[in-house]
Amino acid sequence: MSTPTSASAAFPTMTDFVAACRDAIGAAHVLTDANDTAAYLTDWRGRYTGAACAVLRPGTSHEVAALVRLAVAHRVPLVPQGGNTGLAGGATPDASGKQAVVSLGRLNRVREIDTHNNTITVEAGVVLAEVQTRARDAGRLFPLSLAAEGSCTIGGNLATNAGGTAVLRYGNARELCLGLEVVTPQGEIWDGLRGLRKDNTGYDLRDLYVGAEGTLGIITAAVMKLHPLPAARVTALAGLASPHAALDFFALAGRYAGPLLTGFELMSDFCLRLVGKRFPQLRYPFDASHAQIVLLELSDSESEEHARGLFERMTEEALESGLVEDAVVAENLAQSRAFWDLREHIPLAQAEEGLNIKHDIAVPISRIATFIEETDAAIAASVPGARMVTFGHLGDGNLHYNVQAPEGGDPKAFLSQYQETLNRIVYDSVHKHHGSLSAEHGLGQLKVGAAAHYKSPVELALMRAVKSALDPLGLMNPGKVLG
Amino acid sequence: MSTPTSASAAFPTMTDFVAACRDAIGAAHVLTDANDTAAYLTDWRGRYTGAACAVLRPGTSHEVAALVRLAVAHRVPLVPQGGNTGLAGGATPDASGKQAVVSLGRLNRVREIDTHNNTITVEAGVVLAEVQTRARDAGRLFPLSLAAEGSCTIGGNLATNAGGTAVLRYGNARELCLGLEVVTPQGEIWDGLRGLRKDNTGYDLRDLYVGAEGTLGIITAAVMKLHPLPAARVTALAGLASPHAALDFFALAGRYAGPLLTGFELMSDFCLRLVGKRFPQLRYPFDASHAQIVLLELSDSESEEHARGLFERMTEEALESGLVEDAVVAENLAQSRAFWDLREHIPLAQAEEGLNIKHDIAVPISRIATFIEETDAAIAASVPGARMVTFGHLGDGNLHYNVQAPEGGDPKAFLSQYQETLNRIVYDSVHKHHGSLSAEHGLGQLKVGAAAHYKSPVELALMRAVKSALDPLGLMNPGKVLG
Repeated sequence: MSTPTSASAAFPTMTDFVAACRDAIGAAHVLTDANDTAAYLTDWRGRYTGAACAVLRPGTSHEVAALVRLAVAHRVPLVPQGGNTGLAGGATPDASGKQAVVSLGRLNRVREIDTHNNTITVEAGVVLAEVQTRARDAGRLFPLSLAAEGSCTIGGNLATNAGGTAVLRYGNARELCLGLEVVTPQGEIWDGLRGLRKDNTGYDLRDLYVGAEGTLGIITAAVMKLHPLPAARVTALAGLASPHAALDFFALAGRYAGPLLTGFELMSDFCLRLVGKRFPQLRYPFDASHAQIVLLELSDSESEEHARGLFERMTEEALESGLVEDAVVAENLAQSRAFWDLREHIPLAQAEEGLNIKHDIAVPISRIATFIEETDAAIAASVPGARMVTFGHLGDGNLHYNVQAPEGGDPKAFLSQYQETLNRIVYDSVHKHHGSLSAEHGLGQLKVGAAAHYKSPVELALMRAVKSALDPLGLMNPGKVLG
Repeated sequence: MSTPTSASAAFPTMTDFVAACRDAIGAAHVLTDANDTAAYLTDWRGRYTGAACAVLRPGTSHEVAALVRLAVAHRVPLVPQGGNTGLAGGATPDASGKQAVVSLGRLNRVREIDTHNNTITVEAGVVLAEVQTRARDAGRLFPLSLAAEGSCTIGGNLATNAGGTAVLRYGNARELCLGLEVVTPQGEIWDGLRGLRKDNTGYDLRDLYVGAEGTLGIITAAVMKLHPLPAARVTALAGLASPHAALDFFALAGRYAGPLLTGFELMSDFCLRLVGKRFPQLRYPFDASHAQIVLLELSDSESEEHARGLFERMTEEALESGLVEDAVVAENLAQSRAFWDLREHIPLAQAEEGLNIKHDIAVPISRIATFIEETDAAIAASVPGARMVTFGHLGDGNLHYNVQAPEGGDPKAFLSQYQETLNRIVYDSVHKHHGSLSAEHGLGQLKVGAAAHYKSPVELALMRAVKSALDPLGLMNPGKVLG
């Protein structure tokens, strides 16, 4: 692993490139000093550290385009970066020092809010929480919500097609995006900033760039959908005997609440025990133990009372039929918040407990219970003592199927001994159930090899054809998505 | 225009191709007799008639793949066709007789319904109404709904990214599709039949094929989303003074009903007068005239009473504030149906009134009122006596902005004199308002020229790069989408 420092001195052509970049966007926005660049060269989890000939901080789409044209002229590969909160190393340069990071943080203007069209037009570097706030100030909801929302940017959210806690009702970042502005690998600006719900005039370039992790061009702005602000959000918890029961309860909840159901999260008993162990103020929410706990959220356009009434009728049927063992509806906003706290403290409790292995996977919702049973059994047979931390967005078929080292063991030794075996068991099982080995985090550099292993040759060939057609020089975030 | 007959005799290489196709899928499924092929060679509106060396009717995805490989070997261009109900000539071959039609009608199996995953897996040739029925039988809603649903197929719906009457809540065909099976222009099968809500493992090939009108490959099967079946659907009509008032009413309705609002259709007074003239049994729904009439639909997961209560509170506020001049909530299913009948008889009344010019356009919802005002004025200034038939899915920003010849005039003469002028005025105005010249019908061959005129060179170059990369021989539906 190389030291995070400027490599421009080592490569004469880099020196010319960096000088030209200074002319194009101003010397103050071209970082080469190791102290200045360090934060851009290591990923959020600290798994990857790279080097760069420069970190470029353009202030407008036209400056991004100018930088791309310089990169083409000097054949310098570019690594676009938003809030640098990705979990798969997609925004970290390689160790060669020949790449340049393009940080979009200065493209941070909200260009327009259109309440009649229910859209907000934002530049790539606007922080997600800022988009939420601006929408709320205009009496609208921007539903994308995830743990890193205080520092991740909308450009990064789109490049990785971020998911989060509201996908069940509102979709991923992809479904929230109506239009894009993109700087192509040739340094031209594609103005696809349309705020239209319907447009059937050719190929869907927008969705090609969304989720491409900067390998096909650099997203510089987007038109995002807004929704009416719900009058109330109310949560409930239910204790169940098994993931199978959770599936049946999900179908029942859909029948009662339809599109008002905005959250359906599954957490195993062990997850909440771990939270209780590490954060004793967050107590187990039921008197008795339940193998699985579900958190439900309703977003109601009428009132809190209406939502609570719905919950009460729904849980009454579920309790009477024996589907649910126990249930509690939040009495107020503070209690709703407390229920979500349990859910959100699971990864934090995992970190406190020590190094662990994360799998961000998806399977068809109907396969979730079987997937957990089969994969748990396979892991128990091959990895003695492994503790499964299984939780996630059941309503989206998305599980965080994580593995903690055995109680009292050495997590580091455990990881180095079993990481490969565990990944193979989990991904084989995901593959068998027609699932995805990266539900919401993307491939980055972390999962490029796994994706190449499990995807069909036809699909890989199609992806390569698209990549070569749009980025024939291969300068856009090389080594990510496709190896 | 050539006669719709077999051209295989005229081109020796065609003869070999057709013979090879007979071997591959059986002679009974290779049509060359003019009587057999005629129905496949003229589009639904009767605007385009082409010729073909054969109409091929494969029965499985593997047979489709085999035919594509033969087409590659013999360099025969292929025109995929579903129910042949498209409105832009996208499924009609050219006049050369060198193309072959691939009709997907025999791929008509429902492969799987998964109620826990809320998905249905269907082959391309399944008729839309059949998908709706099968979903309903399983206690689920498949919301895609449009006039041609009794004969159009899901493959065609996806190839054209069909819209229809439920887009406001459920999205276009694109948003209802989770996965695809596609035969590539190389004759390989891409198995992307995933039933996942989240999958971030590479480029979004699915959305590239959706809306590509068969120019990048042939869709042979799809996994489509299902939704919980609403407990009740209730409609209401409101009379308003202007499109501006309709926009404010739309915002108010969103606040009251949130995602329960599944329809918000605008119809001008003239539309309903025309319906009344041609279908006297369908009377004007209010005692007094209103410049604009809005049809609203709620899909409620609770009950009819609940929906009606919502409507009553909503219209009360709108009436009190003067936003709405009059309103009526349907008393029962029959009356809801009658309200929709008014809306659905507008195109029929137009046809009765005589030849007319249709524009299927979209603009940002916030621009609708201004678009109508400005464009109406421009047309009045240039085309004396033109009668505007303006209606559509206001909630999607999608207008059917149609033009009827002057009262008592000769429609044919009117069309030939003014069609070009009218298209230019309308599309210039759409372009000015950042809209789309084909909201839900696609480009086909009808709008290829207009799209090329209004799209930016950057966007056209990107589309061409994708087309060349995936279909380097240019055998997939040539002349459609891109000229």
